[in-house]
Amino acid sequence: MDQVDFVNGKTRILGIVGDPIEQVRSPEMITWEMQQRGMNAIMVPLHVRAADFDDVMPHLLRLQNLDGLVFTIPFKSKALAYAQALGPQATQVGAINALARHPQGHWVGEIFDGLGCVEGFRRRGLRLRDKRILLMGLGGAGSAIAAAVAGEQPSFLQLFDLDAERSERVAALVHRISPATQVAIAAPCIEGIDILMNASPVGMLEDARLPLSVSSLPSEMLVFDAIVKPEQTPLLALAEACGCTVVRGREMMRGQMAKLVDYFNRLP
Amino acid sequence: MDQVDFVNGKTRILGIVGDPIEQVRSPEMITWEMQQRGMNAIMVPLHVRAADFDDVMPHLLRLQNLDGLVFTIPFKSKALAYAQALGPQATQVGAINALARHPQGHWVGEIFDGLGCVEGFRRRGLRLRDKRILLMGLGGAGSAIAAAVAGEQPSFLQLFDLDAERSERVAALVHRISPATQVAIAAPCIEGIDILMNASPVGMLEDARLPLSVSSLPSEMLVFDAIVKPEQTPLLALAEACGCTVVRGREMMRGQMAKLVDYFNRLP
Repeated sequence: MDQVDFVNGKTRILGIVGDPIEQVRSPEMITWEMQQRGMNAIMVPLHVRAADFDDVMPHLLRLQNLDGLVFTIPFKSKALAYAQALGPQATQVGAINALARHPQGHWVGEIFDGLGCVEGFRRRGLRLRDKRILLMGLGGAGSAIAAAVAGEQPSFLQLFDLDAERSERVAALVHRISPATQVAIAAPCIEGIDILMNASPVGMLEDARLPLSVSSLPSEMLVFDAIVKPEQTPLLALAEACGCTVVRGREMMRGQMAKLVDYFNRLP
Repeated sequence: MDQVDFVNGKTRILGIVGDPIEQVRSPEMITWEMQQRGMNAIMVPLHVRAADFDDVMPHLLRLQNLDGLVFTIPFKSKALAYAQALGPQATQVGAINALARHPQGHWVGEIFDGLGCVEGFRRRGLRLRDKRILLMGLGGAGSAIAAAVAGEQPSFLQLFDLDAERSERVAALVHRISPATQVAIAAPCIEGIDILMNASPVGMLEDARLPLSVSSLPSEMLVFDAIVKPEQTPLLALAEACGCTVVRGREMMRGQMAKLVDYFNRLP
């Protein structure tokens, strides 16, 4: 038969919305996740111009076989307005990066950056509970990571961001989620730290800098970097040279894909 | 790598718009055609409710990586309003079943039912030129078939439809396209006919009727039925029993897919 086997009239559609769109990796990764689970569903890129977003969004949501949308640059903050309900993580963080159609028809928003990070650790068998953690960078992904990490109840979470107000806000969020976790806002200091996490953009693409001033790291330290490109950031290169265990941005991304598909697939 | 190879951020999107949508075959067939040609493109089903069509359409057309739409029931006639220019066949017929994004940005409408039928014959090496043809059923597909068949310059084209006004309109259309073709409007009569074509719904699904009153057909007659379900219509079953060569609805559909992809791929 002259036909492909991965799309047909019954295929459920998911989309990733961004401007530009060509750089996204979710279509091939999320579609793979869904195929592994035997779902007849596909994630396609949807290139909506920034200026068109508010006109187009309400109409996209009327496609009857569209089950979910993921949002990337520059729509992460604007997407929140289209959620008619929020999942638990989005309720805590006050932001979303995905919308899923609830079986009852309304659109529920959730944020998966942080959940993906925690899932990446879980898949490696690495615990966050009772650990002493330093998290650098509290933007969209960083604050979501802070919330999800807080949910794992570390004993200590040191936060750093150039924006002091943002640091205060995330510290309060962490405290609400895990009152037993000791929270500190301070310039990055690795003394006594078990797990070092970077969610800042320092080290992205051609940026050769480290997100903190160190020349070496203790080999027993666990080092995570949320950056996907390059895969080997300056921070991870230093960590590996020092014998540390590293968790890569790609593992967080993979964890996020899995959590997203869980969510699209069996919404509460 | 845990990813599929048929969709990514650069994939161009085509859609088939209908209500309902689950029965359509274009996604798997047109996507296959495009893959054969090495295009990074996919056709997905887009379920737009009939009541939402006029609200949703202008916004769908603003998706920047959407290159074309095909329309099925109940949108074939309403789609015409969204064409900003018409291809040659649509200009003749005054209807479209597809919109393609022109490289200059506007949307061009074209109709492929008839072109697909002619392409189906061409692929089988069967000529329509100088033949004596009887065409039954002049609805959307039937009138498009009449126009495309006229373009092949048969010597005689006998038209039949229950709607007399429609028959007159299509006869005038055929005359404009091929002044040398003799046109007649008459109840189906196979005397002197080389090619018998059914574009009426008689014989579809559970309908056991023939679209004309005959008990046998001459074995040298060529018999075409536009119906896709069932593949073996009562008319084609009779034709095969009489030793006729038959051309099936599926061959027209395959021809239409190829013509559509030609069109989406290299718009004039």
